[in-house]
Amino acid sequence: MRLIRYQYGGATSYGIVEGDQVEGVSGNPFDGHRATGNRLPLSAVKIGVPFVPRTFYAAGINYEEHVREAAALLGNEPNLPTRADVGYRANNALIAHGEPIIIPADATERVQYEGELVVVIGKQAKHLSEDAAFSCILGYTIGNDVSERTWQANDRTLWRAKNTDTFKPMGPWIETEANPEDMQTTVRLNGEVVSQFATNSMIFGIAHYIAEMTKYLTLYPGDMIWMGTDGATQNMKAGDTVDVEITGIGTLSNPLIGEE
Amino acid sequence: MRLIRYQYGGATSYGIVEGDQVEGVSGNPFDGHRATGNRLPLSAVKIGVPFVPRTFYAAGINYEEHVREAAALLGNEPNLPTRADVGYRANNALIAHGEPIIIPADATERVQYEGELVVVIGKQAKHLSEDAAFSCILGYTIGNDVSERTWQANDRTLWRAKNTDTFKPMGPWIETEANPEDMQTTVRLNGEVVSQFATNSMIFGIAHYIAEMTKYLTLYPGDMIWMGTDGATQNMKAGDTVDVEITGIGTLSNPLIGEE
Repeated sequence: MRLIRYQYGGATSYGIVEGDQVEGVSGNPFDGHRATGNRLPLSAVKIGVPFVPRTFYAAGINYEEHVREAAALLGNEPNLPTRADVGYRANNALIAHGEPIIIPADATERVQYEGELVVVIGKQAKHLSEDAAFSCILGYTIGNDVSERTWQANDRTLWRAKNTDTFKPMGPWIETEANPEDMQTTVRLNGEVVSQFATNSMIFGIAHYIAEMTKYLTLYPGDMIWMGTDGATQNMKAGDTVDVEITGIGTLSNPLIGEE
Repeated sequence: MRLIRYQYGGATSYGIVEGDQVEGVSGNPFDGHRATGNRLPLSAVKIGVPFVPRTFYAAGINYEEHVREAAALLGNEPNLPTRADVGYRANNALIAHGEPIIIPADATERVQYEGELVVVIGKQAKHLSEDAAFSCILGYTIGNDVSERTWQANDRTLWRAKNTDTFKPMGPWIETEANPEDMQTTVRLNGEVVSQFATNSMIFGIAHYIAEMTKYLTLYPGDMIWMGTDGATQNMKAGDTVDVEITGIGTLSNPLIGEE
């Protein structure tokens, strides 16, 4: 099932995507929803951010090739993480499928994509074992962890490098039936494939992250975990369009524009 | 005005504290509220976390003596920050005045307090000048940035060191008329003063942080910024009580217990 959040006629609702149609629901994906029977063409609605999380978790460094790239960026030796230490991103930066990534006037040319699987938490969870970890997952969506590499290398934290307004495209919807074992992540810049990897080839998998995290913290419905990206990334510029496709979920597409 | 969030008779409401009474309001501090005329003794209500932010910002290293302490912890030379690079904490860890800080079973003895001023954002803000920065502030509350120093020194991120469940006591209320220039922060452990500093003796002040942050990000009503702490901190253990008092706001008090 594909759960979408959309604006239509001045109202914001959730709906279920079926082909090129969306059927409206009352309620939401976390507290329960019921079909209304109202159908619209998907092309007629404005797609919104699927949800705003209570806490926005990000695995950060979680694929081997990306570790080597990140180390090269900072001029360090690659250093594979030894533990699933999770990080954070910020809600201000979230934008929906189709909305523009706005490049700040003082950003360098090193504004880059990172195509990521997003795990959407559906049930409150603490002290979950790896075997039980998937029981708290509602579904999956797609994220683009847009990063300004010069700021990433030089600032004390990742605040503006990763969390400048519009730097976290997410969507287009939550897919509840996809299987991470079968996924491939493909990033396209202006239609050309620039990155492709098996989504599940993580250093620490989803179940391990959830088990480690819930030793110390409670996951709540509407939390999410961005699982990291693999490979090299390239610069993007105003006028470009970046797509992140994950098998079984869909495609998140965003244009880039310059700050006015 | 002191805006409090409380539970009474199975319902959660906001109210205005006047002496030892609380007057209920409809609405909330961010979208507007109106007095109901219903009064209760403050002692009769259960005080809640004043609000759960959309984004939980934290200045981190923002007082000179604390920089020297943090450097000593990691065995490094003290290194004063040169820019107001903001960090993040996580909503799962928030607890209210009076609720227990729970020490995880596998924590070391190095669980320590950090008394902090919390700036509560009341108006949406982007590209604010330092002169205009205070215009987006609704008021102030008190935070205790509880930290497990062994994890802080050794993990790749601050996730469990700073954001283990119950590690972020906040409250007891939002004070809208306090002036940071007149504040002193005092931390007491079992009634004994263990830390005291002029709240406004920050490396980068509130106005500078807001001006820098809003160059890149939008602050929203209900966001908050924890402004950092000064001085040395000491270990706390199960059975202790930690108080953080800030002049003109009040006192945040929490007992510590061990995980069962």
